Amino acid sequence: MISERLVELGIVLPPVFPPAANYLACVVDGRLAYVGGHGPIDGQTMIRGKVGADVSFEEGRRAARMTALSILATLQAELGDLDRIERIVKVFGMVNAAPGFNQTPAVIDGCSDLLVEVFGEAGRHTRSAVGLAELPFDIAVEIELTARLRDG
Amino acid sequence: MISERLVELGIVLPPVFPPAANYLACVVDGRLAYVGGHGPIDGQTMIRGKVGADVSFEEGRRAARMTALSILATLQAELGDLDRIERIVKVFGMVNAAPGFNQTPAVIDGCSDLLVEVFGEAGRHTRSAVGLAELPFDIAVEIELTARLRDG
Amino acid sequence: MISERLVELGIVLPPVFPPAANYLACVVDGRLAYVGGHGPIDGQTMIRGKVGADVSFEEGRRAARMTALSILATLQAELGDLDRIERIVKVFGMVNAAPGFNQTPAVIDGCSDLLVEVFGEAGRHTRSAVGLAELPFDIAVEIELTARLRDG
Repeated sequence: MISERLVELGIVLPPVFPPAANYLACVVDGRLAYVGGHGPIDGQTMIRGKVGADVSFEEGRRAARMTALSILATLQAELGDLDRIERIVKVFGMVNAAPGFNQTPAVIDGCSDLLVEVFGEAGRHTRSAVGLAELPFDIAVEIELTARLRDG
Repeated sequence: MISERLVELGIVLPPVFPPAANYLACVVDGRLAYVGGHGPIDGQTMIRGKVGADVSFEEGRRAARMTALSILATLQAELGDLDRIERIVKVFGMVNAAPGFNQTPAVIDGCSDLLVEVFGEAGRHTRSAVGLAELPFDIAVEIELTARLRDG
Repeated sequence: MISERLVELGIVLPPVFPPAANYLACVVDGRLAYVGGHGPIDGQTMIRGKVGADVSFEEGRRAARMTALSILATLQAELGDLDRIERIVKVFGMVNAAPGFNQTPAVIDGCSDLLVEVFGEAGRHTRSAVGLAELPFDIAVEIELTARLRDG
């Protein structure tokens, strides 16, 4: 069970972050869950700034991990139970990149690594990891995710 | 009926904008319609420039609304009838952002608000709303959308 | 057969590019293949730099074509046979854009044209073609693709 796995890993999911505008955090369509853009927000902290300038590479990576946890909080609220996830299909990772900062894959690995820690092989996904000019509220990282759900 | 709703709202859809290069404005795959990047073009005007510099926040928001109308024009041409849409699933909203402009969610609300006005609850969707470095022909906003279609 | 078509076109697919971080190059989910971000890498060369500055428009277009070939190499390895592809559904084309460079659709046509040459009508797709602030390792172009597979 994923809830046991989270305990083993010492992970407590953050509070669900309410959408900051007129949209839904997640839409379940058939057996796919589409999670819209989430950021590095855990109820207490929000990591803001350009990675490679205001925010260090390591902090950016931590931001990507925090973002993955916020996505899992949303999925748990939406699905009731993370065991309904059959596999993670796709991630679109966006880094608030300072000019010249292009180690975006290693930053987004903060998210991808967490997904594999939690879901094992089922957490492995395809993705892009790219540098955006600006992100909402100057958050350091924004990530979208698509997950396949189990039958029934 | 959506066509009646559009009349109620005083909305006349713009002409369909023909793709500017070697691609299709929309692909229907099974019961999902994937609409590629559309811009703020209504047959007479095209809103261009960086939001937060050449283009004001309010004008950017209006550009997002115009973009949503251009998407609906494409969907109507493709589907024959907007009532075939069961729900809007996902929006990817891209703002041509001036350096430091990060109120991208409020800009893309110009699109999201319109979708909810037209489709009601079925218009609510998940999304990202981010700042791009450059958009085609310097348009102020570009938006992709995925919609679920009704059976049959 | 696509393999014969490639021979006719004088195209030899490049070696499969192994993912540069913790992700999969492609995920097949039901009858959809999701290909994550690929770049202009053919085993010998990688085209790097900002299109419109370090990289010319024509070179950017060539980078988009190389990227499409790298995607096809991944799909062939994943699917065993490119004839399993029923159609290309969607492309998300990202150009590493120099400030002020916005001819991104014509650059990404380097990819779209190749897909249509190889697959004919089935290669036509919807897409966005936009300018990113930074791409991984400073590659000139990055492209994601979604393809529909045949039954069985």
